[in-house]
Amino acid sequence: MIRLRKPKVVILGAGYGGLMTAVRLQKALGVNEADITLINKNDYHYETTWLHEASAGTMHHDRVRYSISDVIDSSKVHLIKGTVSTINREEKRVILEEGEVEYDYLVVALGGESETFGIKGLKEYAFSITNVNTARQIKEHIEYQFATYNTEEEKNDARLTIVVGGAGFTGIEFLGELGNRIPELCREYDVDQNKVRVICVEAAPTVLPGFEPELVEYAVNHLERKGIEFKIGTAIKEANQEGILVAKGEEVEEIKAGTVVWAAGVRGNSVIEQAGFESMRGRVKVDPQLRAPGHEDVFIVGDCALMINEEINRPYPPTAQIAMQMGENCAKNLAVLVRGQGELESFTPDLKGSVCSLGEDDAIGVVFGKKIWGSKASFMKKMVDNRALFMIGGASTVLKKGKFNLL
Amino acid sequence: MIRLRKPKVVILGAGYGGLMTAVRLQKALGVNEADITLINKNDYHYETTWLHEASAGTMHHDRVRYSISDVIDSSKVHLIKGTVSTINREEKRVILEEGEVEYDYLVVALGGESETFGIKGLKEYAFSITNVNTARQIKEHIEYQFATYNTEEEKNDARLTIVVGGAGFTGIEFLGELGNRIPELCREYDVDQNKVRVICVEAAPTVLPGFEPELVEYAVNHLERKGIEFKIGTAIKEANQEGILVAKGEEVEEIKAGTVVWAAGVRGNSVIEQAGFESMRGRVKVDPQLRAPGHEDVFIVGDCALMINEEINRPYPPTAQIAMQMGENCAKNLAVLVRGQGELESFTPDLKGSVCSLGEDDAIGVVFGKKIWGSKASFMKKMVDNRALFMIGGASTVLKKGKFNLL
Repeated sequence: MIRLRKPKVVILGAGYGGLMTAVRLQKALGVNEADITLINKNDYHYETTWLHEASAGTMHHDRVRYSISDVIDSSKVHLIKGTVSTINREEKRVILEEGEVEYDYLVVALGGESETFGIKGLKEYAFSITNVNTARQIKEHIEYQFATYNTEEEKNDARLTIVVGGAGFTGIEFLGELGNRIPELCREYDVDQNKVRVICVEAAPTVLPGFEPELVEYAVNHLERKGIEFKIGTAIKEANQEGILVAKGEEVEEIKAGTVVWAAGVRGNSVIEQAGFESMRGRVKVDPQLRAPGHEDVFIVGDCALMINEEINRPYPPTAQIAMQMGENCAKNLAVLVRGQGELESFTPDLKGSVCSLGEDDAIGVVFGKKIWGSKASFMKKMVDNRALFMIGGASTVLKKGKFNLL
Repeated sequence: MIRLRKPKVVILGAGYGGLMTAVRLQKALGVNEADITLINKNDYHYETTWLHEASAGTMHHDRVRYSISDVIDSSKVHLIKGTVSTINREEKRVILEEGEVEYDYLVVALGGESETFGIKGLKEYAFSITNVNTARQIKEHIEYQFATYNTEEEKNDARLTIVVGGAGFTGIEFLGELGNRIPELCREYDVDQNKVRVICVEAAPTVLPGFEPELVEYAVNHLERKGIEFKIGTAIKEANQEGILVAKGEEVEEIKAGTVVWAAGVRGNSVIEQAGFESMRGRVKVDPQLRAPGHEDVFIVGDCALMINEEINRPYPPTAQIAMQMGENCAKNLAVLVRGQGELESFTPDLKGSVCSLGEDDAIGVVFGKKIWGSKASFMKKMVDNRALFMIGGASTVLKKGKFNLL
């Protein structure tokens, strides 16, 4: 049988979900079975879960990314560097800033965005740990504050204050890195460490919601020992040129700070709303096969997909682990559709656990139902990170970018 | 003979002139012959002539400095980390921010400062390559501009424009480093090199006054080939938040720039004026033994000393070479005075030549009367730099800090 027209599969985004879909699909299909196009803003993939390290300056930002072309089979996947503006679902076209692309099957894997919940000034005055560009800007911003301090005639101590908004996963991991980085920065820039403050502000009544109290206590104690201050149950009301305003109950306090990093909110991609999908904060409640309701040809994976964990009746969190598993499932289902044979598989997350880093040599977590902390957890965290590299990029990517400072 | 009171020698500043005085004096005198005190703002000495490299980011700022205690014999020289406010010449006391010190003999080796000639806004909006603190701030500032560019929604290309005011020695050497650094920065921060502009603005009718036209032409050609633009015979009229205003004759032009570095003016230290010495822009016209007129007990060496080169009837330039030679002469004369025997020696500079770097692998210069350029001149430049380390710090300092990337 000669097929006159190969089905066009277009994948938007080369993060954990999109790139996993692409590499699994190129393995599953022969060169002549489908036209696969992968569209991404950059010609590189980055490890979103490592950005806190690049942001703190404990890891060079180039170690956080690798060329997509290194893991893509160019005979099977056509890579376009482009920025998605919107999707025309009726005409089955993706509108890029640079042009248009038609699809038969679409995978939306555009990733999340920072969500500021309308808090005044956050967009303008706070940084967010979102991508390689913002991560290295945070690093450079902090270094510039330290470099500037010694050149000032009147010392502005607030320059050396760093506020981290949010004590969730990203916030805590970033604080862990800062705990290690601050003493280095003080040596590097001849700054007295007593002048430096790192303050975490969290509106919720606890740090790391979802983790058991015992592990949370371990994390807070260890971070406090590194000099991090916690303001829990305290909401950021406003960010401005000088720092932030926070409120705990009725009490409002001003914290002057040279650097404010907002690490509290993630939402789905705004393209989801642009394209007219029904969504909650940019996340589409997908069907069991990860498709947008009413669109059998549109899969949504990663941070833009919303799925309910029936056990606790809450959505699964937007994690790399789940995004990669969605990518695998999606690739399988696409192969079924392209070939017109077989059955679509429903997606079931396989939660292996969760490890939160507290710096280079410390972490807490739950793995296969077991609580771990300290160097053991830190080891596991690096294994988890290497595993993500391996799953998408294979052994050669692990060798190039992996974490081998294991003990 | 038992002397009841040892003469107190106080040296202000541990730059080329002051530190050379200290290390030579500790060699010339025994432990019991004098109380020698060296006062410096930092506990380190830095190579002023290498600061353009730290500023451009082509050399880490720690390679530009070394601990004073590494080269000082603590049994003979007492090191005080302090900042000089003024000198009470009548009572023979140095007033520090931290206290007071008495002297019998004083060496003022406080070094130069940036001179902005009253040009509006330069103090507030331009950086200067003055010390380790300002150098690393320039480096961090430039990196922050590059890091920020990719995070902007509306690209501000002026962020990537660097203006260097002055095409003298420091300006040209800094431009040479920038020529090498810009391509690195573009790779590092994913910036299109076509967006970057480096502009040198010089009010004088030529680049590198004092160098022969043939060498000047070589320098300008080679820097232009690296993408540097020159605006010669053009004066900076004002610096502001946005950049600078320049004028060539009647014509005024605005240049928007994210970074402005003023590298055109050096003057003596303002403490000279504070202390009431007669001076021209902080430089004291010293006697042949390098003493302040009317003060047989006060030596002035380095950038604060003004000496006329009779051959051309112009002052000797404030260079490291001359500062070090002054330090040697001063130490000899101090030993004579402390011992009360021998004759004071007049100072005669021994000008071995002058090499101006054009980046890592290129330079121009005149050495022992011979014109050199290219890799040969670059080699000589590194030898000159290593020689300065050796003269003050000895072989171990050369091994630690020397430049061995010679070919």
